[in-house]
Amino acid sequence: MPKIVDHEKRKIKIAEATWKVIVDEGIENATVRKIAQACGLSVGALRHYFSSQTELLHFSMGLVSERVIERLKRRKISKDQISLEFLMEGVSEVLPINEERKREMEVWLAFSAKVLVDTKLRELSNKVYKDMHQGFENVVQALKLLNIIKDELDLDLEVNRLHAIVDGMAIHHLLNPEQFTHDKMIETLKYHLQSLCK
Amino acid sequence: MPKIVDHEKRKIKIAEATWKVIVDEGIENATVRKIAQACGLSVGALRHYFSSQTELLHFSMGLVSERVIERLKRRKISKDQISLEFLMEGVSEVLPINEERKREMEVWLAFSAKVLVDTKLRELSNKVYKDMHQGFENVVQALKLLNIIKDELDLDLEVNRLHAIVDGMAIHHLLNPEQFTHDKMIETLKYHLQSLCK
Repeated sequence: MPKIVDHEKRKIKIAEATWKVIVDEGIENATVRKIAQACGLSVGALRHYFSSQTELLHFSMGLVSERVIERLKRRKISKDQISLEFLMEGVSEVLPINEERKREMEVWLAFSAKVLVDTKLRELSNKVYKDMHQGFENVVQALKLLNIIKDELDLDLEVNRLHAIVDGMAIHHLLNPEQFTHDKMIETLKYHLQSLCK
Repeated sequence: MPKIVDHEKRKIKIAEATWKVIVDEGIENATVRKIAQACGLSVGALRHYFSSQTELLHFSMGLVSERVIERLKRRKISKDQISLEFLMEGVSEVLPINEERKREMEVWLAFSAKVLVDTKLRELSNKVYKDMHQGFENVVQALKLLNIIKDELDLDLEVNRLHAIVDGMAIHHLLNPEQFTHDKMIETLKYHLQSLCK
């Protein structure tokens, strides 16, 4: 069914153009008209793929988290190959460590601010929060499987803590890259994960 | 000089109205016209206080951080009265623990997203980052003064970590209050601070 594939591919192209408009001009300027222009479509043609701006933003936001989750899934390896190093790299995948990830995070931050005033986006934001939280739970559980996590730790609270540290650092680096540099971010992450280990 | 006082007071009233517009309708709708309407002024009268939307947003954003810093300063006590409990409460002051603090954080998140595309706001954002970072450094130093902090910790990295955890948790609670509840936020903060202590 090439037509359906094309339709989906085109939607992804439009979502990527949406990210670009959001990053370059701010989410308040991400109008249907501007996004159509950015992908060389008429407003009418764009409406064929997305009937409203909300639907378009919803899809674009969903694509950011899908990409992150896809990247993490691609890293799946057998249990006996898991190491602290491997988990560290996995967590880094959700930090703004390069231009691609920075763009994703910028789009995410713009969306997050919009979630506060747009209840339709909130549901998706909650779903992504849950997915990410599950990812951090997997990391903590893997440390346990490896039998390197300190016995006295409260694993539920460790998941909250890891999730908060990662998102907090991501925002600090994104907004203050000169003060909270890439190297400081990675060093702090390593320090945190090591502090959980025996 | 009552006139100057009135001028400053009026500016603060306008900034507070700006917060309300941002929280209720999103920063993309925080136009000069809408803010003027919200404080019962004409656009011309508002321009008497702020010559541009950027200047108005800059002042409103600055006021959020001033309020937070003021609150923290009011808590100053003598060295021998400082305790882990006192520091815990101090850190809670920058978390969205009640409606007032939630509103501040919401304004802050909206501004943060705008900082990415507005270089004029970036400078202020960097200043606030530094001020807050200094605040967290004070907390870590106080734990050292109390002689309750674990000897093996790297204090610089602990400041990064505490700052990231607090901001990460604030955003998680703000966007996902049902999943990451107020109680979980406070419990995780206590857990973190306790984990630094002997």
